Amino acid sequence: MPAKPLTYIDSGVSIKQGDAFVAAIQSHMRRTHGPRVIHDPRGFAGLFRLDYNESLFRRNFKDPVLIACADGVGTKLILANKLDKWDTIGIDLVAMNLNDLVVQGAEPLFFLDYIACGRLDKQRLEQIVKGIADACAHCSCALLGGETAEMPDIYSGDDVDLAGFSVGVADLSRVTDAERVEPGDIVIGLESDGVHSNGFSLVRKAIEAATLDLNESYEDLDPERTLGEVLLTPTRLYARAVARLLRKYKVKRVVSGMAHITGGGLQDNLKRALHADVNAVLSESSWSPHPIFPFLQQRANIEPEEMHRVFNMGIGYCLIVRPTFAASVSRHLARLGERPVTIGKITAGSGSVKLEP
Amino acid sequence: MPAKPLTYIDSGVSIKQGDAFVAAIQSHMRRTHGPRVIHDPRGFAGLFRLDYNESLFRRNFKDPVLIACADGVGTKLILANKLDKWDTIGIDLVAMNLNDLVVQGAEPLFFLDYIACGRLDKQRLEQIVKGIADACAHCSCALLGGETAEMPDIYSGDDVDLAGFSVGVADLSRVTDAERVEPGDIVIGLESDGVHSNGFSLVRKAIEAATLDLNESYEDLDPERTLGEVLLTPTRLYARAVARLLRKYKVKRVVSGMAHITGGGLQDNLKRALHADVNAVLSESSWSPHPIFPFLQQRANIEPEEMHRVFNMGIGYCLIVRPTFAASVSRHLARLGERPVTIGKITAGSGSVKLEP
Repeated sequence: MPAKPLTYIDSGVSIKQGDAFVAAIQSHMRRTHGPRVIHDPRGFAGLFRLDYNESLFRRNFKDPVLIACADGVGTKLILANKLDKWDTIGIDLVAMNLNDLVVQGAEPLFFLDYIACGRLDKQRLEQIVKGIADACAHCSCALLGGETAEMPDIYSGDDVDLAGFSVGVADLSRVTDAERVEPGDIVIGLESDGVHSNGFSLVRKAIEAATLDLNESYEDLDPERTLGEVLLTPTRLYARAVARLLRKYKVKRVVSGMAHITGGGLQDNLKRALHADVNAVLSESSWSPHPIFPFLQQRANIEPEEMHRVFNMGIGYCLIVRPTFAASVSRHLARLGERPVTIGKITAGSGSVKLEP
Repeated sequence: MPAKPLTYIDSGVSIKQGDAFVAAIQSHMRRTHGPRVIHDPRGFAGLFRLDYNESLFRRNFKDPVLIACADGVGTKLILANKLDKWDTIGIDLVAMNLNDLVVQGAEPLFFLDYIACGRLDKQRLEQIVKGIADACAHCSCALLGGETAEMPDIYSGDDVDLAGFSVGVADLSRVTDAERVEPGDIVIGLESDGVHSNGFSLVRKAIEAATLDLNESYEDLDPERTLGEVLLTPTRLYARAVARLLRKYKVKRVVSGMAHITGGGLQDNLKRALHADVNAVLSESSWSPHPIFPFLQQRANIEPEEMHRVFNMGIGYCLIVRPTFAASVSRHLARLGERPVTIGKITAGSGSVKLEP
């Protein structure tokens, strides 16, 4: 029997330190909370009022459908770790989730995070949570809770993993329905800010293969920012503009389908918005890919097809809209800060996405 | 420029293999789905009807509060890995989340998982998802979606991490409210099945300090099962019985507070169910701790206070109930398969938990 009594701190975990961190992030959470969040600091779970039955804000759903998804940021974390820059990876996490959520027609309600790490580096974790809260606030989504797990035996010292979960709501009649897509509909693409949060395993291989330096600026990429900075640029929060657009067209159903362009690229993701009797025909020349794509492709000798399979190639979100509304939808999205481009149209077909020059 | 074109598979990630796994787990998900889940195999997010406005099952919430939480299973994963037994760790994951959810008075609605791994070991991941689905089905909770991330550069070959996220609902008037706890209320404890999913860092240290063998059976613990098997016993799914109990007492509010006993033990967790003017006074002799606790304590020389700070010590869930209903609540919980014990009572006090011999 060992002589010295064994305690939990010996085993690498400090309950007190964990509690201190939880207290520190409360202020970040609070600034994302509207009147629908019910505060209970002792609660075992977060509370969110779906309807808000106060006289001034009375609002009810006829047949509410809850919409939920889970996602992480993949190995973009490795890059954040290498550059020791943690204030925007939380934006990626929220974007990966909320952008998926609004595809189904959801109004985002709340978000929860899971942070796992080898050791509780309070400053770093606060930066991560700050990014999460910034993104939630931007999209009017409550950061309702989360879990921070310190697991020194699974994660080595500096390693971190992040997962996010989000929930939204839509009335049943307003949930996105692929069957509504019709020949003649227009495909509007929203420009991306680079690779976003997909394909980083390939990015790392490309950097290695072409012996690129994350801390260097390249003339043919961005003379003002290092390669690392360009790659870390956060995923665009399309969810904000899309949710507002859907709210604006409350009666008319001008959007017939949407897609968030992540792993699998334009072809795999936009296909999910189509039914079996239509195609989406996209014209590649209609948009200019973000400079990171030709840069990686040329430097590391990646086939164009492989680029399209892995990356968003400059279009991070697609909306399929009725032709008579295409111009006004584009105008509205531009006013909301997005960069919309008409990239193609829907034809009769077999449920596939055609990329034309 | 490297001569051979670089592809995503070179970089350790196979989109095809990921897709195959997603297809394989569909059947596990389906068996957890009731009529409120809306199927959309192409969807970017899961869809769940909150009300079910069909004539036969019509059901509406007056002022629905969504209740959500996120949790993992901590380093119990290391033990699953060591013993290469993956069919019950998913039960732990669901239990850690749903047990927290019902504390707030929620009826569990749906669950999402996040699985991160170094490589997609299809068989192992299916075992994990099977456990998750088993637990969800047991608690009438839909496994609505999830994310499986293969990240060879963050997780070494065999490493896995799991996070879960769950959402439930309660009408505002039925949400647990600590202010309702009154002197005279009875504390009913539900027996645990061992350490559940907390304190495994200390468990590992204890095993090391006392040179115990996971593959051995110990007379003073369990002659029929190895130490590893005893430790891997899944966290009890109290959520099932508790949700049914709350449904049974639809009008009378017999339960005034609850607590899921996790890290921090009885004292820290039960305290969260109390307001500032009451104490919970528990009598330790009223229940017999699961044999794993005296076993670890004696073998590794752990102080009793430390044991209570880290482990559930045999009581995994507490309900504070009105005295006139204590007997019928206990009977009902026993019929639902739990092992209820009257472990203490509420007195006037200062918001703390007293452990008496």
